[in-house]
Amino acid sequence: MEHHMKAIEFDRYGPPHEVCHCIEVAEPGAPGPDEVIVAVEACSINPADLLLIEGRYPGPKQLPARLGIEGVGRVTATGSGVGHLDTGQRVLLLGRTNWTETICTAANNVIAIDQNIDPLQAAMMKVNPPTAMLMLSNYIDLAPGDWVIQNASNSAVGYHVIRLARARGIHTVSVVRRQSAVATVAALGADLVLVDDENLAEKVRSGIGDANLPLALDAIGGAACLHLAQSLSIGGTVVNYGFLSGEPCMITPTETIVRDITLRGFWLANHLGKATRQGIEAIFTEVTSLIRDGTIAAPVEATYGLDEVKTALAHAGRGERSGKILFTPGGPIA
Amino acid sequence: MEHHMKAIEFDRYGPPHEVCHCIEVAEPGAPGPDEVIVAVEACSINPADLLLIEGRYPGPKQLPARLGIEGVGRVTATGSGVGHLDTGQRVLLLGRTNWTETICTAANNVIAIDQNIDPLQAAMMKVNPPTAMLMLSNYIDLAPGDWVIQNASNSAVGYHVIRLARARGIHTVSVVRRQSAVATVAALGADLVLVDDENLAEKVRSGIGDANLPLALDAIGGAACLHLAQSLSIGGTVVNYGFLSGEPCMITPTETIVRDITLRGFWLANHLGKATRQGIEAIFTEVTSLIRDGTIAAPVEATYGLDEVKTALAHAGRGERSGKILFTPGGPIA
Repeated sequence: MEHHMKAIEFDRYGPPHEVCHCIEVAEPGAPGPDEVIVAVEACSINPADLLLIEGRYPGPKQLPARLGIEGVGRVTATGSGVGHLDTGQRVLLLGRTNWTETICTAANNVIAIDQNIDPLQAAMMKVNPPTAMLMLSNYIDLAPGDWVIQNASNSAVGYHVIRLARARGIHTVSVVRRQSAVATVAALGADLVLVDDENLAEKVRSGIGDANLPLALDAIGGAACLHLAQSLSIGGTVVNYGFLSGEPCMITPTETIVRDITLRGFWLANHLGKATRQGIEAIFTEVTSLIRDGTIAAPVEATYGLDEVKTALAHAGRGERSGKILFTPGGPIA
Repeated sequence: MEHHMKAIEFDRYGPPHEVCHCIEVAEPGAPGPDEVIVAVEACSINPADLLLIEGRYPGPKQLPARLGIEGVGRVTATGSGVGHLDTGQRVLLLGRTNWTETICTAANNVIAIDQNIDPLQAAMMKVNPPTAMLMLSNYIDLAPGDWVIQNASNSAVGYHVIRLARARGIHTVSVVRRQSAVATVAALGADLVLVDDENLAEKVRSGIGDANLPLALDAIGGAACLHLAQSLSIGGTVVNYGFLSGEPCMITPTETIVRDITLRGFWLANHLGKATRQGIEAIFTEVTSLIRDGTIAAPVEATYGLDEVKTALAHAGRGERSGKILFTPGGPIA
């Protein structure tokens, strides 16, 4: 007898809670030689999931299609050629169709992780923590006492940047777009929290004096990018990783030419695409250990079953939240 | 008896041919121990001179003030402590007050150059040739067969970029703002000349196929900077060195994040300010040799005496010229 399971799919681009449905489908059968079957414990609702469903990010070529950029679960069966994974092993799922109860996937599309990690935290570790970690490491050699400035600081990446920097003795200027976000971000441990406007650079300098501020992380583009550039020390680098404003990054020749500011871009997909398997495993081993020691711990606002998809997506789409929304396909996790 | 000489000064910021005057002043007396006296043979009218006089560039703190960013001449007297320069030596003048018949300056403010160089070419070698040379060398390791793209190509820097690239087996896409400039730039040896618009990247790709185009040189900013970025190969670098549009450089997150494009800035003053004396001498030795072997030869449209200052500046301010305007304070040079 064929077993059925729940999964989420969407059949057209549009508002997520309208176009996504929880469907009953056949469970995967036996794994192929190089495949594993994984029971999904938790999978996050990422902003990138929502943008993809709305048609604002590159999505699947054919609809209807499955969804879910992040997920974590336990191996329930391994193919005959899979020597390095056992049943019961907790794994991070690297694919992009994780909003499901059970998944059959290539063994090299999962990464074994610590058995004892919190599965909700693990379900939020694929995208945001490595983004924060790699942006802090890959552009500037930061020394303890240096400062970093970022905008959109009340995002998951913003939160991780504050925590990771603090753990390394780096100070953070965290810029937000509205006064109501200041207290939340300050509570995370940001050293200086400022509301963005055209006087940002002046406010930064009255806050940190002539301290070294060589790195800026820009998630917004447009004038917000320029304000970060103006706040940097001479010779500093702006790393653009998002485009919340929908506008091109702006940077004046005073910054580029006179103050020797560099503008670069970071995209995790590009980074992982160029990394070796060993490099990818090293990244997630480091993230796992940062979760285990409590350095990073993303707040969770609510978890839902897959059959609560419409409520969950509507909840995830609301602006003012205190944490992430996740699915727990195997049932609630304490 | 005191001897008099001609020099140019300006007494207020404004239109160059209105606010600049040729004055009679006392010739410098005997040089101090570490000084030299130089009879100026030729000094260029640089766009930066005009911008400074108009008050659009940082200028002198007190007016009236002398002028002239570039110049070349012959040593007529040396101070008692100056061992490395003899009377008659041709020197490049590194100071910024060279529109004069004779100048007294610190010996380390001049660089000895080839006796046999064309003094008009030498009078144009301080700013534009090193700018072109260093931008081609300092950001990307270009291999023969690679391409470089630039805008404002019918400028002195644009011209040098075409010639220097060609000498190294590098191909150039030269972008201009109006159709009337295409023939001039093509005649200089540019491999592909295009008029700028929002379809530039497409036109570049139909011109060069999938050839490697890792470096763009932007003198304009605004959307022109974006068009260069869009034309680059993945992972390429835009070097911004001017701001003819008066607008911030624009670069979309598609370029920074997805296509891994970097935006940097180049300013010769910053570069020379950080270089050692030996480094500066090496730069101008290389430029001298490029002039001697004919690799670079900037066109000259006219030369004037210092007392023809108003005519000369009005001429220099006209848009459509075929070459530079220079002063020859010691009399016409054949």
